[in-house]
Formats: sequence, C-alpha cells, structure tokens
Amino acid sequence: MEFDSKPKHEPDTIHSWTFLSKIRNQSPLIQCITNFVSMDLMANTLLSAGASPAMIHSIEEIPDFTPHARALCINVGTLSPDWLPAMKAAAQVLTKLGKPWVLDPVAAGASNFRLNACMDLVAMKPTVIRGNASEIISLSKASLSSSKGVDSFHESMDAMEAAKSLAEASGAIVAVSGAIDIVTDGNRVIGAHNGVPMMQKITATGCAVTALVAAFVAVDPLHPLEATVSALSIFGIAGELGMEMAKGPASLRMHLIDSLYGLDQAAVLSRSKIISL
Amino acid sequence: MEFDSKPKHEPDTIHSWTFLSKIRNQSPLIQCITNFVSMDLMANTLLSAGASPAMIHSIEEIPDFTPHARALCINVGTLSPDWLPAMKAAAQVLTKLGKPWVLDPVAAGASNFRLNACMDLVAMKPTVIRGNASEIISLSKASLSSSKGVDSFHESMDAMEAAKSLAEASGAIVAVSGAIDIVTDGNRVIGAHNGVPMMQKITATGCAVTALVAAFVAVDPLHPLEATVSALSIFGIAGELGMEMAKGPASLRMHLIDSLYGLDQAAVLSRSKIISL
Amino acid sequence: MEFDSKPKHEPDTIHSWTFLSKIRNQSPLIQCITNFVSMDLMANTLLSAGASPAMIHSIEEIPDFTPHARALCINVGTLSPDWLPAMKAAAQVLTKLGKPWVLDPVAAGASNFRLNACMDLVAMKPTVIRGNASEIISLSKASLSSSKGVDSFHESMDAMEAAKSLAEASGAIVAVSGAIDIVTDGNRVIGAHNGVPMMQKITATGCAVTALVAAFVAVDPLHPLEATVSALSIFGIAGELGMEMAKGPASLRMHLIDSLYGLDQAAVLSRSKIISL
Repeated sequence: MEFDSKPKHEPDTIHSWTFLSKIRNQSPLIQCITNFVSMDLMANTLLSAGASPAMIHSIEEIPDFTPHARALCINVGTLSPDWLPAMKAAAQVLTKLGKPWVLDPVAAGASNFRLNACMDLVAMKPTVIRGNASEIISLSKASLSSSKGVDSFHESMDAMEAAKSLAEASGAIVAVSGAIDIVTDGNRVIGAHNGVPMMQKITATGCAVTALVAAFVAVDPLHPLEATVSALSIFGIAGELGMEMAKGPASLRMHLIDSLYGLDQAAVLSRSKIISL
Repeated sequence: MEFDSKPKHEPDTIHSWTFLSKIRNQSPLIQCITNFVSMDLMANTLLSAGASPAMIHSIEEIPDFTPHARALCINVGTLSPDWLPAMKAAAQVLTKLGKPWVLDPVAAGASNFRLNACMDLVAMKPTVIRGNASEIISLSKASLSSSKGVDSFHESMDAMEAAKSLAEASGAIVAVSGAIDIVTDGNRVIGAHNGVPMMQKITATGCAVTALVAAFVAVDPLHPLEATVSALSIFGIAGELGMEMAKGPASLRMHLIDSLYGLDQAAVLSRSKIISL
Repeated sequence: MEFDSKPKHEPDTIHSWTFLSKIRNQSPLIQCITNFVSMDLMANTLLSAGASPAMIHSIEEIPDFTPHARALCINVGTLSPDWLPAMKAAAQVLTKLGKPWVLDPVAAGASNFRLNACMDLVAMKPTVIRGNASEIISLSKASLSSSKGVDSFHESMDAMEAAKSLAEASGAIVAVSGAIDIVTDGNRVIGAHNGVPMMQKITATGCAVTALVAAFVAVDPLHPLEATVSALSIFGIAGELGMEMAKGPASLRMHLIDSLYGLDQAAVLSRSKIISL
C-alpha cells in the first residue's frame, strides 16, 4: 500500500460538510441522462441534497439547455443506441465549457454494445467514473464481465488496482462502491467507510450516489477527488441514519432521502469515515 | 386587481369535495402521455384519488384506446421527437370527441425544441395548461427562459399577467403553481392557497397535480376552471395532512398519497383555501 | 368444478417457503423487459425477494447478456413497436436454452396493436402468462376488451374458463389475479387466496408479482404451476403483513416490500392459503 509515498494531502482535510453546504446554498443545476429505473430516486436524491435536477435526454435540446448545467451525470443503465449520441453531445458541451461530468458505467461488462459505449464515453474524459467493482474491472480490462448481473461480484478492495489503472489511463477520478468505497486519481487512494449493506437491496442507490457526485463536483470542480469521496461518505451517512429507522429496504429508501435532506453538520462530522488507503 | 369588475361567481361556490367524490364514484379513465420521471407518482396519485390511470404513449394505440379515455394528460418532461406525434394525435381525438385534455409544459423555456413543441400543443387548444411561473411566462412570451431549470424562479403571483394573456390567447384555463396557486380563464382569477413548501422537494409533484387536474376536469368538463382550482386545492390539502406526519421529502411523498386516498369531507371543507384574486 | 377428476397433486404439497428460500440462496438473475411505470417497483420487489434484477431491453444486448439470465419477464405495459423485437429475441434465447420466461399482457385488449403483440408473444410459448381477468379473457378470445382500462372489470373466478382454454391452447401456465388468484395448466386449477384489496390502488403491483413469478420459476423450472401459485401467495402474504402497518396505498407499498424482505417461514406457513379449485 506504500503509505509513505502518498502526498501529504491528509483525508482529514476533506470537509464533506462544506460541499453539502455549498450545494444547499447554490442549488446547482445538474443534467442527468440516465436510465428509466433510477430517474425517480436520482431526482429525489438531488433535490434532497439541495441541487436542482433536470432529466433531459434529447439531442435536440443539448445545444440550448446543456450549457446552463453546472454538471452532468451520464448513466448507461437502460442504454439503447438512440440515447448514446445525446450522451456524447452533452459530455462534449460540458468538457468544452470546462465543467465536470460524471459517468456511471452500469453493468459495463454485460454486453459488447454496452462495453463499447462505455469505452467511448471514458475516452471523452469524464471528470469522475463511479461504478461497482465488476464494472470498474470491466472498464479497466475493456472486457466483458465473467459475472453478468448489475450487482457486483467483486469486493471493492479487490478492484483497487483496476481503479488506479483506469484512473491513470483515462485521467478521471475513479470511484468503486463497496463495503468500503474507494476513490483514486491513480496516485492517491482515499476510502469512505460509511453506508449500510441493505442499501444494495434498493434499486438505483448506485445511480443516485453518482448523481450526488455530480452535484458535489459541480460546486468545487477543482477538487473532484475530494468532492467524490465526500459525496460517497455523505450518502452513506444518510443511509446509516436511515437504517436506524428502517424495517426493510423500502423504508430504508425513504428514511435515507429524509436523512439526506435533514443532515446537519454534527452528524456529518461525527460519522464521516474518510481514510487514507 | 380590479376586484369589482369580476363576475359574481364567488369562489365559495367551488366545492372541491364534490369533484373528488365524483372521481371516487366514477373512476374515470385518464390517459397519460408523460415523462419517465413522473409515471410512478402520477399513476399512484390518480389511483389514490379514485381515478383509473393508463400510461399509453404509442401512436399505434391512439385510434383504438384513446376514445375510451375520459380525459388526457400530456406532459413534456422528458420529451423526445418520437413522442410528439402521439401527443398530438391523442389531443386531437379528445378535442374531436369534446372531451378535456390538460397540458403540463414542463421546462417549456429550456430549449427551442421544447418551446416549439409546447407552442404546437397550446395551439391545439388544451382545456387546461398547468405549469410553474417560469413555464407559463415562457409560453406566454413564446421565449426561452432566462433561468433554465425545471424549477420556477418566478413567484406565481408575478406570473398572473402572463397567465391571463396565455388564457386569452389560447382559450385554455391556465394554472400557475406557487406559494399561492392561481387559476384563470383570462377574466376571472381564483387562487388556491393550500400545500406546503416541501412538496417542491419531491420530484414530479407538479406533474402529479396536473394529472389530478385531468381527473377533476373529466368528471365535470363544463367547469374546467372550478375543476382545476379544486384539484390544486385538494392536492395541497393532502400535502398539508401529509406534512403533519412527514420527516422529510420522501416520507412526505408517502403521507401525501396516503392522505389523498383517505381524505374526507370534513378535512376538505375545513382546510380548503380558495380565494378570489 | 369436477373436483374428482383432478389429479391427486394436493395443493398442500406446494411449499411456497421452499421457493423463496431458494431465491434467497441462489439470487437468480432475472432479466426484465418491462414498462416504464413498473421498473422501480419491479426491481425492488425482486431485490427484496433475494433475486438479482436486470432491466435490459436493447436488442443489441440480447445475444451477449440474455443467455446468463435464469429467467425473463416480459411486460407490455408501455409498449411501443421498437421494443417488441427485443422482447421476441430475448424470449427466443430463453426458450432455446430451456429456461423459463413469463409474460404479463398488460391491458392486452386495449388496442389491436397491443393485442397482436401479445398474441405473437403467446405463440412463442411463454412458461407462464399472468394477467387480470380482462387481460386473460382478451387473450383467450383474441379480442379487444369491452372495458378499456388497465384495471380488471371481471372477477378472476369468471375468468377461469378463459384461463383454462388459454393454457390449453398456448401450453403456458396461466395465472389470473383477483380476489382469489387462480393458476391453471389447463387441467389442474389452484387458487391462492392471499393479499388485500388495497394492493390494487398501488400502480404496478401486478407487474411486480409477474416478475416475482419469473424468479420463482427460475429456481424450479420443472414445476412452473407450483412456482407461480407460490409467488402469488407469497406476494399476497407480504401485502397482508404490510397492510397491518399501512395507512394508505403509499405506505402499503413500502411495508409490502419491507415485509417481503423480512418474510420468515412461520408467517408463510401460517398465512399461506393455497387451495384446489
């Protein structure tokens, strides 16, 4: 793990709360081109965090609308060929304007069509890529997954090397969700150890946290690594607080969103587990 | 405000409860051609009110299915060019049969594509148009919004003149959601002062109330102004009752729908705030 | 009802709990090509039961992805012509591999386009067809519905003859949801008498239970009749348990999913009402 070779940015300099406060104050407009399953949860997650979501996916609208977005979230969950050009066009607009965009390569290794689409998007230099271990390994190796589901069958720690090499190759911050979420720029590796296992029993929580990453990066585009790890930690903390009231996945989903909306500084400071890896 | 020049239809003659009772008794079939984000909440809102929703958007089905609908709700939230012909065809069927249809011009000013689509639909003479202040102002001026989000950056009262002129030009009842919802036929202006601010932190509540307007207009097509203001008031009351149990936007969403389902006459009569403006 | 002519498979040999346990242990991958309204609830239902859902609908992905699915759920709720080829291609893959697939003919009688699509799919020999009485009658008669909504206007018991003749003609297990759910292979008829009426006030519960049928059939493809009736009973039991905590349709939806997730053997054994008809 070569702990000594890390730069002296200590993770305790990452103030998740500051990011969340900025979102609440600025209400950044976040365009989402995402899958059908996640649209509702993603929009509600962004609203609860204080951001302003816009689910707009038609290529006809990109030139007029997209320049106004502060960040963009692209998610390939229910990808079809006709949605891909708009994803690329929107990413191009953000890149040209020097604004951040985030890629969620859902089930990247499920088919050659999907893998190729994801590789095309990776080549367009997203600011952040967030996936589970299987997805990040598929992207890193540019190969289909041996498992096939959208679930992850690799532990996130196992995906660390894949994440580093994907970050180096793409120039993106790469985040891998798992028991411990890890985030890397190819050199530094930071972990966020928040959240509860039951969050994996709610569809689209991964998609939702990627949208949250977009909102966090929007308010501090010069620190995408810190923004990403903060978003993962904050969403995990909302899950932990929600879990205290939940009786199952559906009530956890509700309490998580309520908790994200009501989150205060004390809870963030006392619960945040952001660590060097 | 020329209060004296108003006709003598007093708002206290608007009996929201009567509309809701009719919906519960008749269970009107409401076709919705709407955006991907709102489909779930919209269907559940209609079901909870006692209506029978049908999310059918293929142009192939319009000739067989649409004549059976009692009303139609068209919402352009995640518009793409391939959905527009079905919207127009369905609107035409309803108009031809003398049945009401309702337009929700979500983010009308977000792009020229969207604005033009909305203007085309407005020209087809919807019975009711319901939007937020930004959307109604965009339609009224036929111009892109200076803000760009789907949120409203104008207070609804400021949009009153835009609403009146849009109502006059289009022949539609125009409703503007806001702290006070306003509804106008271009001459009369009625306000509904129900609801709670947190409803804006739940995605698709605007879409849902527009669908509810369609159900209210369906059971009394000769009184679209009264039906519209009643729907807005009833939905707001459900939000107020829900807010008494809510701990955040996600639990508010749940309690709002539960409250709409369980709403009784006493709550409606005691809470309804429908006022002349 | 010719009770004596039935084979001696007694319904008390149907162990719903065994099916659910297998799903929790095996986490079968279930591909869903479904409507936009139901995607969220369907995915969450499958996750809560222990299955692994994948909402993948592009024909480009069928050859790579679909062979890995243990079962497939096809639902025509928001059908458009461009989705039909992928449905057919996916069904073909499952059939070729000897794996089960399930058809939900939502609103089959709403239009000729929809009816023809459903008849095409029925001709491809689904393992199970689950619908409400109106839908099964439409399929059985190959005729448009006299009612037009997605709701059922026939009692499920009235649909028994239609179900039997559809099962005989198609070779599928046919399930009809209603006050008593009935399941038939054309010869045997089994009823599941669980659930609560308020479940009909939640959109997509029918879609969700069809996906659950797919998961149940996935873990025991040689006993599709038993698997189907077990899925219907288990979902109904989750609804009964949820109803004990619910204050309306939205909280019922939440408690139903939580209950499905937490369901234990004692509750299943004590509440299961599976009967010969």
